[in-house]
Amino acid sequence: MKHFTFLALTIAAIVSLAAFSAPAPGHADAASAPYVTEMPSGYRDWQWVSSAHEAGDINSIGAVLGNDTAIKAYREEKLPFPDGSIIAALHYRYVPSAENNKVFGQAQSFVPGAPTNIQFMVKASTKYAATGGWGFGHFQDGKAADAAFMKPCFPCHQKAKATDYVFTHYAP
Amino acid sequence: MKHFTFLALTIAAIVSLAAFSAPAPGHADAASAPYVTEMPSGYRDWQWVSSAHEAGDINSIGAVLGNDTAIKAYREEKLPFPDGSIIAALHYRYVPSAENNKVFGQAQSFVPGAPTNIQFMVKASTKYAATGGWGFGHFQDGKAADAAFMKPCFPCHQKAKATDYVFTHYAP
Repeated sequence: MKHFTFLALTIAAIVSLAAFSAPAPGHADAASAPYVTEMPSGYRDWQWVSSAHEAGDINSIGAVLGNDTAIKAYREEKLPFPDGSIIAALHYRYVPSAENNKVFGQAQSFVPGAPTNIQFMVKASTKYAATGGWGFGHFQDGKAADAAFMKPCFPCHQKAKATDYVFTHYAP
Repeated sequence: MKHFTFLALTIAAIVSLAAFSAPAPGHADAASAPYVTEMPSGYRDWQWVSSAHEAGDINSIGAVLGNDTAIKAYREEKLPFPDGSIIAALHYRYVPSAENNKVFGQAQSFVPGAPTNIQFMVKASTKYAATGGWGFGHFQDGKAADAAFMKPCFPCHQKAKATDYVFTHYAP
């Protein structure tokens, strides 16, 4: 099965890193914001795309989920993603599992700890034409990050232009 | 949000470890087997429960998915899981992502590589009464492990009797 390259997780992690040291983000102006200011509903029910561990300062483990439109595009390996595609990246602290390690008899198991942030890429090619057709979103405790915080998203995702600005591969 | 303890991943990893060094498993006798010999269908469409990284010799990253019955029980924190619950653990080699690391400018990103195995816990309290009401399954390239290979599953899962023999926590 072929995969194709995708870009949410890496940027997610970069933005997450920034999030840990940034001032608490406030709500943006939804009318003019060139990014996502409302959490897409129902994302926790979406299907799994892949998981990743970002080591080092980020110290994150998470999952990328996709809504039906995004998952269909992933599976059919069709680029660009059609309008209506939404990709969610759920991030958590990367923590050892004491109970798993007890069963294993050694320290080896790492699992999601406290949630850190949830990020979205929302495809709406006209609305978000200036950022590759994707609206980027970053939420901590349900609150959207502000404009300054969101500024680096697209410049980084541009590195994955060949895969419609998306980093994460679909795990078979 | 409260979580509750769950047990698939740890055992999954233990069995995975065994799998890497075990002879190629053959199909078991479905009529008499006290474990799962057929892959449950549609598991790749199920909802995400959590992810984990098992370090060391196992070197695995994966996701635990649940069918609707299992996910409902998880979210309602109802134990024991009702008959019909199925939990899947999808495992992959834990590999660095060269393309992500290039974007980050440092080696920090780890993602799923080649698939290694898929494991299942199928709740059928009468059929699998001898193993806590759960049938355990382990598949490599779509082929079920044999009886000898499956023998350690339940003894290890017994350590999570308090959470209906399931290790993995639901990630919020």
